[in-house]
Amino acid sequence: MAGNTFGTIYRLTSFGESHGKSVGGVIEGVEPGLDLDINYIQHQLDRRRPGQSEITTPRDEKDRVEFVSGVFEGKTTGTPLAFLIWNKDSRSKDYDNLKDVYRPSHADYTYESKYGIRDHRGGGRSSARETIARVVAGAVAQLMLKKEGISFQAFVSQAGEVKLEKPFESLDLSVAEQNIVRCPDSETANMMISHIDDVRCDHDSIGGIVTCVIRNVPVGLGDPVFDKLHARLGQAMLSINAVKGFEYGSGFSAVDLRGSQHNDSFFIDKGRVRSRTNRSGGVQGGISNGEEIYFNVAFKPVATILKDQNSVNRDKTETVIKAKGRHDPCVVPRAVPIVEGMAAMVIADALLLNRTYKTSS
Amino acid sequence: MAGNTFGTIYRLTSFGESHGKSVGGVIEGVEPGLDLDINYIQHQLDRRRPGQSEITTPRDEKDRVEFVSGVFEGKTTGTPLAFLIWNKDSRSKDYDNLKDVYRPSHADYTYESKYGIRDHRGGGRSSARETIARVVAGAVAQLMLKKEGISFQAFVSQAGEVKLEKPFESLDLSVAEQNIVRCPDSETANMMISHIDDVRCDHDSIGGIVTCVIRNVPVGLGDPVFDKLHARLGQAMLSINAVKGFEYGSGFSAVDLRGSQHNDSFFIDKGRVRSRTNRSGGVQGGISNGEEIYFNVAFKPVATILKDQNSVNRDKTETVIKAKGRHDPCVVPRAVPIVEGMAAMVIADALLLNRTYKTSS
Amino acid sequence: MAGNTFGTIYRLTSFGESHGKSVGGVIEGVEPGLDLDINYIQHQLDRRRPGQSEITTPRDEKDRVEFVSGVFEGKTTGTPLAFLIWNKDSRSKDYDNLKDVYRPSHADYTYESKYGIRDHRGGGRSSARETIARVVAGAVAQLMLKKEGISFQAFVSQAGEVKLEKPFESLDLSVAEQNIVRCPDSETANMMISHIDDVRCDHDSIGGIVTCVIRNVPVGLGDPVFDKLHARLGQAMLSINAVKGFEYGSGFSAVDLRGSQHNDSFFIDKGRVRSRTNRSGGVQGGISNGEEIYFNVAFKPVATILKDQNSVNRDKTETVIKAKGRHDPCVVPRAVPIVEGMAAMVIADALLLNRTYKTSS
Amino acid sequence: MAGNTFGTIYRLTSFGESHGKSVGGVIEGVEPGLDLDINYIQHQLDRRRPGQSEITTPRDEKDRVEFVSGVFEGKTTGTPLAFLIWNKDSRSKDYDNLKDVYRPSHADYTYESKYGIRDHRGGGRSSARETIARVVAGAVAQLMLKKEGISFQAFVSQAGEVKLEKPFESLDLSVAEQNIVRCPDSETANMMISHIDDVRCDHDSIGGIVTCVIRNVPVGLGDPVFDKLHARLGQAMLSINAVKGFEYGSGFSAVDLRGSQHNDSFFIDKGRVRSRTNRSGGVQGGISNGEEIYFNVAFKPVATILKDQNSVNRDKTETVIKAKGRHDPCVVPRAVPIVEGMAAMVIADALLLNRTYKTSS
Repeated sequence: MAGNTFGTIYRLTSFGESHGKSVGGVIEGVEPGLDLDINYIQHQLDRRRPGQSEITTPRDEKDRVEFVSGVFEGKTTGTPLAFLIWNKDSRSKDYDNLKDVYRPSHADYTYESKYGIRDHRGGGRSSARETIARVVAGAVAQLMLKKEGISFQAFVSQAGEVKLEKPFESLDLSVAEQNIVRCPDSETANMMISHIDDVRCDHDSIGGIVTCVIRNVPVGLGDPVFDKLHARLGQAMLSINAVKGFEYGSGFSAVDLRGSQHNDSFFIDKGRVRSRTNRSGGVQGGISNGEEIYFNVAFKPVATILKDQNSVNRDKTETVIKAKGRHDPCVVPRAVPIVEGMAAMVIADALLLNRTYKTSS
Repeated sequence: MAGNTFGTIYRLTSFGESHGKSVGGVIEGVEPGLDLDINYIQHQLDRRRPGQSEITTPRDEKDRVEFVSGVFEGKTTGTPLAFLIWNKDSRSKDYDNLKDVYRPSHADYTYESKYGIRDHRGGGRSSARETIARVVAGAVAQLMLKKEGISFQAFVSQAGEVKLEKPFESLDLSVAEQNIVRCPDSETANMMISHIDDVRCDHDSIGGIVTCVIRNVPVGLGDPVFDKLHARLGQAMLSINAVKGFEYGSGFSAVDLRGSQHNDSFFIDKGRVRSRTNRSGGVQGGISNGEEIYFNVAFKPVATILKDQNSVNRDKTETVIKAKGRHDPCVVPRAVPIVEGMAAMVIADALLLNRTYKTSS
Repeated sequence: MAGNTFGTIYRLTSFGESHGKSVGGVIEGVEPGLDLDINYIQHQLDRRRPGQSEITTPRDEKDRVEFVSGVFEGKTTGTPLAFLIWNKDSRSKDYDNLKDVYRPSHADYTYESKYGIRDHRGGGRSSARETIARVVAGAVAQLMLKKEGISFQAFVSQAGEVKLEKPFESLDLSVAEQNIVRCPDSETANMMISHIDDVRCDHDSIGGIVTCVIRNVPVGLGDPVFDKLHARLGQAMLSINAVKGFEYGSGFSAVDLRGSQHNDSFFIDKGRVRSRTNRSGGVQGGISNGEEIYFNVAFKPVATILKDQNSVNRDKTETVIKAKGRHDPCVVPRAVPIVEGMAAMVIADALLLNRTYKTSS
Repeated sequence: MAGNTFGTIYRLTSFGESHGKSVGGVIEGVEPGLDLDINYIQHQLDRRRPGQSEITTPRDEKDRVEFVSGVFEGKTTGTPLAFLIWNKDSRSKDYDNLKDVYRPSHADYTYESKYGIRDHRGGGRSSARETIARVVAGAVAQLMLKKEGISFQAFVSQAGEVKLEKPFESLDLSVAEQNIVRCPDSETANMMISHIDDVRCDHDSIGGIVTCVIRNVPVGLGDPVFDKLHARLGQAMLSINAVKGFEYGSGFSAVDLRGSQHNDSFFIDKGRVRSRTNRSGGVQGGISNGEEIYFNVAFKPVATILKDQNSVNRDKTETVIKAKGRHDPCVVPRAVPIVEGMAAMVIADALLLNRTYKTSS
């Protein structure tokens, strides 16, 4: 319960630091007999990888996932799936100058205060490198859910000041994978890429918004009252590094509407209960209603910038610091598979939990 | 793990339905020897109560909390505190016309789909009446945390289209309790009240935003990586009825800033590490940094409106429904103590969990 | 996680003290749509009740269970079932002389040391009166499991020095309910009753062994490696007041056999895999194998005796105490429904958890 | 919650199979800043290792533990400690003949029934090789608890029919490590060794009893009512492979005593509350009372024997099988560090949980 485990039945216990020996995790709740498609998992990891395009950091980590338990002749056995990604490209020396200083808007100060000790190299456990474990466990969840027909598509809907203005329902979301910024509108994508380039030249950084759409979720997933489906999605997304906000369905914009404008009328579509609009975002009372689930995740600008910043040392003196090394000016394109992965873990867990219900008859 | 329990050490297990016998809960993790100040707890309940002012529903539920275990001679004993609020003012008949219909943007359809059975009276378990348990458990947490100097102040920062434009840091937040809409700026409060009146006359409803400020939280609370303090706050808030979004610190507005604008510079203030700005919202890397924690919670417009709406019956025929009875046009003023209560539970749990760490020396 | 909750999906959160307002609990994971047969539940409670026969304490508590949530028109709804038993027959005065003294082999000293405060009346939370909640939640589990054909039969196999020598397989276990000591062999029962009478006359007490047999458990229940079915049964039984030991299948007597004598040979019986002997006690590798599950639970002699005993006061002076009031010389006949109830909760939880597995095909 | 995690704050999540790539685990709750003494951990592993003496199996696995996260400059950081032991000496071929057969009193049949798939090599996940993870996590717990002065000493008190008749209080328990059977009385040890040799020559196997003594546990550990300290110890021990029974303090022998004989009188010893006898086994009402905690764990005879046995195949035909390869005739000497390790995890968890209590003052 020290925060390293996510989920009740479909669960990830994550471990590892940026510059320790490895990052990895243990996955429980995976369906026994599942073909463990390593290529698919590695593909998701590659989408998260630094250095995959000119707008991401040039650190080419080439992370290869290695499963060390739970697989027999290529199939899962129902026992825990443990996996590792070895940390190769460490260059710990890059961080020597940060040993005694707390970087602004990073977790250096809070970790050292909480634990009394800190692995300063690349942020240690607080590094976004930890999200590797989420992508792997999310990809395994996606393998399970694919068989149920459930799909996950996240994309960048805002990068700094450049915003995708078209509603996602009007777009072919698969286009997002055709450009390096992962925006499903190629025109907006080009503007985003150009904006990110400008920011990089300024030695500065920006944030953005990742939108995620989940399709074909069966009716009935989610556990009221505290584990409402959207509350679990919210926790999942807010636990990703640099996330500052979460909204689902109409989200914050619901505040500007009246009930008569906001409510989703029901109708009967081929014998199935459906809603004409979907401001509910596919979830009512914390339980999926069969419509598309969609939500937005806001990421702050990357905290590491190649500019002078005022800060303090461990000995409580003031100082000025400036990052060295290789850093993303904007991480949201790489956050896309992380958002999908966390969403898949939430849905997988809800699906398995929902199997425990069986109405008397 | 069926969603009725919140927290690891400081925990609420909630039970009850809108028109069943009672709503209540079991609280674990309360400090033994604490004076259980019933007046304070009842005061918080009264702030949530319908009928407390002319802008809330005229249902005067007069909910009285009764503790049925865990107290000895007025003090807590370290054993579970169970409490009940009996459902008196039930008027189940008001709901007879809703027995076979699914109300738009309510949980009727999803509950019946999930469980195969539904207590249709007032929404049953999905009713916001369940939040009574949260207010009680939150008030007990506040009693514990008061002794540590930690305080919680929530207020309405937006009601429908009327928005509080002044930054909260410039206001005396205690003013919020002096008006029925719970906005700390009396001028804006009056506009909100007038707006809510208009909406009521239209037989319509609006939503709003509740902002919460937590002061004096010690450095070090929160458990990375999945139980980051803000992720737990997010789940807590998103689990409240009608909530559509959560953001902390700079929130969604972080997307419009560059890293150089967004980062919070550190400085030394009387020997203590502090940040000059607080876009981090008091949390860095999921751990409290000693600055004020603040966040926004977006509520959708009330789904129950006194207008005709298209919907469907259980037998999958289409119909038109219209609510009867007494309903709030805007619930956000009453949501203020719920938000404070959930926040207090999250902080109490994090505080107790943090005591399990003790650095070697 | 403060020890008041048992189970993962089928869960009881228990509350209450011996002489507080009530004892009760919240049950989660109950199948929605189940007929909540109050008579059956009350029947189980009556089997636990003091004063039910001349060999149990004359305190006639007449505990009536009251469900206060989770039921609609006599059926469960899938929401938490909360219940209460009000403490009526309190006679707190009986305990005034024990306010400042720690009774030998009771929990007075340890509770006060742990919590810094103690409800001394009748042992407070440490009283066996807490087991009421277990019997209720166990009875609800039994209602669920009856529909799957699973049955639970516990009985007294030893009371003090009087031991049931016949193997249980040779007896009609339902006979146990026909005598007040709940032993399925009437001759042994009479000896036990006579022995308990003697002990009472001596103002002394004895312990005993309860054996439990669970029939018709499907193959596959239990979760290796830490939640092996027998490990969960063991925790469940050891958590009952006064229990000192647990063994399943061959138990401690396995130590005297060689592997060649102890192993259960498999054979095919009408197309089904079965074992010729059942020293495994129906569980192999922590998972049920379809054979009868059986186990023994050892209870120590009742700690409260009507004799002088050396003890100490809170102020750390030595003293001599002697119990007053009404006490059982032997509690094992009343422990029978508690053992059955805890066993039913373990099996219900394992059954629900097992539904989360579905092999790929 | 699929049974691979043990503990609430001090937690082990275990993974791995007998003949998969590795066995390992993730430990949470370890005190930050602790010197991770690898030699001590490896020493405990070596005590569990097959092939360590002539009475254990000649498989010399030479398991070396490798920590892959959570350590920085030799100290723990408060982040999860992941570790691996690579499976080297696999010889999977030895098990080819067991691919389609269910071994008597093993978990082959139940695993295949539950999961629909089975890693048959050496029992896969059901192999006692999984206990490696427990020994490592237990050794880390022991490192933490040593600093609190708490010590763990387990030993063999019965091997087949040879029983240690002297009370453990009269013996120097450290003598146990001076003989290969780990019995603290050298005379009895010799008889045990000789008995095991005889059994081996018979191609048969025996079980035994491991007794464990925990010293210097502070008053107040354990969480009533379901997580009583002895109930958690019971679950921990019963979850070890081949365990059939658990008793603490007077255990099953309590049944033969009267209350007046069994109760532990309190007295004052140098200002401290102590009991003159210790039939309570150091735990009263589920909470430690400061006296020695001691308990017995019964192990069945090893199921694998080099004799013909009747069994069945996967295709539901009957067959005769005979084990090949290298197997222990008696595992209890090697179980000693496993019992100590599990005990240490239980105590570490209870100690950390107990820190969350702080009485109001």
